[in-house]
Amino acid sequence: MPHFLTTTDDDFERRFMAILSAKREDQGDVGDAVAAIIADVRARGDVALVELTSRFDRLDLTPDTMRITPDDIARETASVAEEDRAALSMAVKRIRAYHARQMPEDLSFTDPEGATLGWRWTPVSAAGLYVPGGQASYPSSVLMNAIPARVAGVERLVICVPTPGGETNPLVLLAAEMAGVAEIYRIGGAQAIAAMAYGTATIAPVDKITGPGNAYVAAAKRQVFGRVGIDMIAGPSEVLIIADGQQDPDWLALDLLAQAEHDADAQSILITPDADLARAVTASVERLLPDLPRADIAGASWRDHGTVIVVRDLDEAAKLSNRIAPEHLELVTGDPDALAAKCHHAGAIFLGPFTPEAVGDYVSGPNHVLPTARSARFSSGLSVMDFLKRTTIARLSPGALAEIGPAAVRLAASEGLHAHGLSVQARLARLNEG
Amino acid sequence: MPHFLTTTDDDFERRFMAILSAKREDQGDVGDAVAAIIADVRARGDVALVELTSRFDRLDLTPDTMRITPDDIARETASVAEEDRAALSMAVKRIRAYHARQMPEDLSFTDPEGATLGWRWTPVSAAGLYVPGGQASYPSSVLMNAIPARVAGVERLVICVPTPGGETNPLVLLAAEMAGVAEIYRIGGAQAIAAMAYGTATIAPVDKITGPGNAYVAAAKRQVFGRVGIDMIAGPSEVLIIADGQQDPDWLALDLLAQAEHDADAQSILITPDADLARAVTASVERLLPDLPRADIAGASWRDHGTVIVVRDLDEAAKLSNRIAPEHLELVTGDPDALAAKCHHAGAIFLGPFTPEAVGDYVSGPNHVLPTARSARFSSGLSVMDFLKRTTIARLSPGALAEIGPAAVRLAASEGLHAHGLSVQARLARLNEG
Repeated sequence: MPHFLTTTDDDFERRFMAILSAKREDQGDVGDAVAAIIADVRARGDVALVELTSRFDRLDLTPDTMRITPDDIARETASVAEEDRAALSMAVKRIRAYHARQMPEDLSFTDPEGATLGWRWTPVSAAGLYVPGGQASYPSSVLMNAIPARVAGVERLVICVPTPGGETNPLVLLAAEMAGVAEIYRIGGAQAIAAMAYGTATIAPVDKITGPGNAYVAAAKRQVFGRVGIDMIAGPSEVLIIADGQQDPDWLALDLLAQAEHDADAQSILITPDADLARAVTASVERLLPDLPRADIAGASWRDHGTVIVVRDLDEAAKLSNRIAPEHLELVTGDPDALAAKCHHAGAIFLGPFTPEAVGDYVSGPNHVLPTARSARFSSGLSVMDFLKRTTIARLSPGALAEIGPAAVRLAASEGLHAHGLSVQARLARLNEG
Repeated sequence: MPHFLTTTDDDFERRFMAILSAKREDQGDVGDAVAAIIADVRARGDVALVELTSRFDRLDLTPDTMRITPDDIARETASVAEEDRAALSMAVKRIRAYHARQMPEDLSFTDPEGATLGWRWTPVSAAGLYVPGGQASYPSSVLMNAIPARVAGVERLVICVPTPGGETNPLVLLAAEMAGVAEIYRIGGAQAIAAMAYGTATIAPVDKITGPGNAYVAAAKRQVFGRVGIDMIAGPSEVLIIADGQQDPDWLALDLLAQAEHDADAQSILITPDADLARAVTASVERLLPDLPRADIAGASWRDHGTVIVVRDLDEAAKLSNRIAPEHLELVTGDPDALAAKCHHAGAIFLGPFTPEAVGDYVSGPNHVLPTARSARFSSGLSVMDFLKRTTIARLSPGALAEIGPAAVRLAASEGLHAHGLSVQARLARLNEG
């Protein structure tokens, strides 16, 4: 049974806080093992990659066979069904169109003092995308990571994907090809992150690494951060659905289960002012759950982390949502826009009954890599901005320096930074001569 | 003597790589000590803060005296000279004007399929700014951190600043007041970061922590990352100056020294195609250095990390600059705009002879919190974006779901996520009935 709370209950605040602060994941401390792998790859390069891949992925490679060649890709993807190809193609087109709108503008302006100021956006030169192997090898993740990088103008895109026992996922390769990634290595785990961060004879280093992974990959990303940029370290997925009493209980139940089937640590929450709906949705979940191929996973998630909260009204629902700061927020009410205006912290919002979260995972256009574990309070989903950086630019005319330079001299003096002041004064002296 | 390299030398590449990969700082491993402090603050709250402040800052507080009150601030800032006040005021006005232009726009559009898509930017609710004590207590840093947060619309802004022996910096308090920060605590070190991340009875928790600090503060920020957002972990400051032979050697020497006086680990680099200028600037540095109040620090930095590189031409200079990815880049040449177009990785660029880097530290307008240690390859300086997050928004019409839903169903099936597909199919079935 999921948690069932009512805000008018005496112990609501205590129980809500317990759910809010529950740690849904403890990946164990793999930091030392990962540090050893990274040190090994830095020291021995390709030799270490070959040995580690043999050990962890039961796959014997040489530096020459690390890369999945264009021929390999052509052969592997030939068998993909036309319907899968068409679905991926629609996803590529829509994700690309949405992310193209995120490209920020450069700026240059001259202020009244004569200072020309602005900024310029430039892409990172090289980005590495990690793609997990086995069950969690999702073609949709390839698109969500590679397309923003491509749109941002990243020149070199690399994918590392483990192929345990040599087995590749044709749809992952096709997604990479469609997203414009040609450099793919059959290397996984912490060793792949180390190779992309530090480089080996075969794999040139990148500047930024993104993509999901297991505890080893997450720890490796943490450890190489600083040497390269990384995206977020994602936790288990979450959905919060706020619904009024007019909604179809089965639809909401399936949306809750779609989240739950990801992972036993995933969390699905329903908040509604309608106690009857709360009960109906719970009943639907129980009815629909047993037929799911992933009933074990979804069942464990719903039993351990599933939560239903009955509130006084939708305003109270919005307030709770802001405390939860969910990764995915479905607003399924008569006037979802009005409710959305009150929800300030969420990775992605899905409005109305015909926007199930699952369309956002694949084809609606926005990115599905989103902040988890309440980090939507301070961070955003993946975007083209993750593959760009901004350089600020300033050019002062002699008049502008004469105008604002003395204040810099004064402030430098107050901070005890004498050479700072002198560097401005030397120029001011020349201007005063002239 | 600084490093002196010429790109036509046989051993140039080896020496350049050695400088590029030199670690200019080893803060020592304070991770365990910091973890203990954070655990203590989480467990004992204010009591821990009082004890730790007594031990590290030789200051006896109670929860009631942790906060620097408006009366304290009024008393402390009364003695600030009018010229300092005016200089700070100009800085506030210019930094605010620049950062106001960074506010990103929300977007909403409806595509041909009937999907209304977009995003919305919202500020973090509460941000904490760390301000170091003692020598490194810079009013300019207060402005550079607080103003972007204010412009972003952050509702609650908190400053933690250690006051060793009870001593406060009136200009820091005035800068905080001018930037609109009213909640200031005389708490420093890892304990301040822990208090802002987890909260105590007196200090409510924040969502994002920014600001510079010593090794303990940096380690604490790393450890609380995830619980809250943080800005970058800054390393020692750097400047790269690219100059042609027409420039005043003393001006360039003072710019190099302004960077060197920050910290013995700071790095100043000059790249020029003119060997005579290279020698003249080096001579100027030697001549000007002894008179600086911070000659010891600047001298150590110049001796250990200072670098002069003579190149074939400015194109080669730009290529080296892109490998260095400097925090500050001064382009002091006849056509600095043309050169800037070739420099892709830099935190901030300063164009022409009348834009010494020092004006950028204080009054030009752009932020002085910038990526160090080659991280300009993948990251940007502080901006209003650091205090905002983006929520993506999607709303599908029934027609849009009919159009794109089947592709989501197909992709969900290929990833083995059955409930994902069902959540879409249940809606499609209803549409087909209708």
